[in-house]
Amino acid sequence: MAREEVTLLGMWASPLALRIEWALKCKGICYKYIDEDLLNKSQRLLTHNPIHKKIPVLLHGGKSIPESLVILEYIDETWKQNPLLPEDPYERAMARFWAKFVDEKCWTTLPGVFGNEGDEQEKSKEKAIEELGILEKQLEGKKFFGGESVGFLDIVCGWIAYWLPFIEDITGLNLVGETSFPALSAWFKAYLGVPWVKELLPPPDKLRAHLTTFRQKLLSSRS
Amino acid sequence: MAREEVTLLGMWASPLALRIEWALKCKGICYKYIDEDLLNKSQRLLTHNPIHKKIPVLLHGGKSIPESLVILEYIDETWKQNPLLPEDPYERAMARFWAKFVDEKCWTTLPGVFGNEGDEQEKSKEKAIEELGILEKQLEGKKFFGGESVGFLDIVCGWIAYWLPFIEDITGLNLVGETSFPALSAWFKAYLGVPWVKELLPPPDKLRAHLTTFRQKLLSSRS
Repeated sequence: MAREEVTLLGMWASPLALRIEWALKCKGICYKYIDEDLLNKSQRLLTHNPIHKKIPVLLHGGKSIPESLVILEYIDETWKQNPLLPEDPYERAMARFWAKFVDEKCWTTLPGVFGNEGDEQEKSKEKAIEELGILEKQLEGKKFFGGESVGFLDIVCGWIAYWLPFIEDITGLNLVGETSFPALSAWFKAYLGVPWVKELLPPPDKLRAHLTTFRQKLLSSRS
Repeated sequence: MAREEVTLLGMWASPLALRIEWALKCKGICYKYIDEDLLNKSQRLLTHNPIHKKIPVLLHGGKSIPESLVILEYIDETWKQNPLLPEDPYERAMARFWAKFVDEKCWTTLPGVFGNEGDEQEKSKEKAIEELGILEKQLEGKKFFGGESVGFLDIVCGWIAYWLPFIEDITGLNLVGETSFPALSAWFKAYLGVPWVKELLPPPDKLRAHLTTFRQKLLSSRS
């Protein structure tokens, strides 16, 4: 099955789809990428993820696998080279614990900073800084969340390294200073400096324009 | 490490803690159980789960592992006998996908049915029936979610089998009829009939009294 064609249904500006591309690239797996229009969902997407109707979806060996964390584990179990999760059960549990933390916390609060103004934004900003501080502590003394090399949790958190400066720039807020979050700041540089990570990043000008329009839509839908 | 002492911080009426007891029992692991008072959290709980301050937490070999799904994977990787997850990567991905579905959907909508009245309750009821219908389809033609024997997803969903009749009884609503959900109804019986599942169920009278008081608190906090 491992030799069968691999296709990813994604969306170029989606951090969750980027996770999957990073994992496939890290493993050296060739794949076909299909960019989905999320405002006009294709029959293909609805067929392959009928429950959530969302990207990313990995297609492999005639099967469809949705949900980014589920896909990452599938990739790690299907292609054993360059393991993403550590070997030790406790270390694996901690990688999964922090991945869940990022998806349940940061995935809500950072868009809360980005898509709000005034009090709501301030509340989200406070929460976001607290959560980023918790991640900062996880990184202390390490180059990557995975230790000396990139692992599962780096790929899960990687979007923060690239998206956060856009969030700060577009909102005019400062969340992560090098002085207050030295480990996180160093990790941003180290992670984004990995060749296969860098290679897959969405073009900055295109992403900035996309996020600026997206923020305007969010704010006008709330006003 | 596998021979070191195993302790579970739980709460007798918690479906999430019960998942862990079921998994340990299924594997034949002896463990010490500590019942936590969630209205007056112990220093022990705060030390072992400083991030979420919630049960369940598994203590093993000097390490603390929180979050029920993370703990289930840890148990399955630490003690290999009676595997919970299937071997095949795609089957494993599907078990994880449905576990996430249950925790993100049913875990919100069923308490929404239980802790509301009027329109809010009606909305949750509709969603709950839709979600249970989706689970019904996953079970069609199978005795357990895991196939012929109990697996990861049975343990994850198991609380529904025991708690749902209490929810129906206390609210006076009917969610799962044998005619409309034959596969789910048969699974309720099959799962609760497994000796080690049955043995760990909270006493029905005590649970009914606890849930009745809990519902009254929820309703009065919302009125």
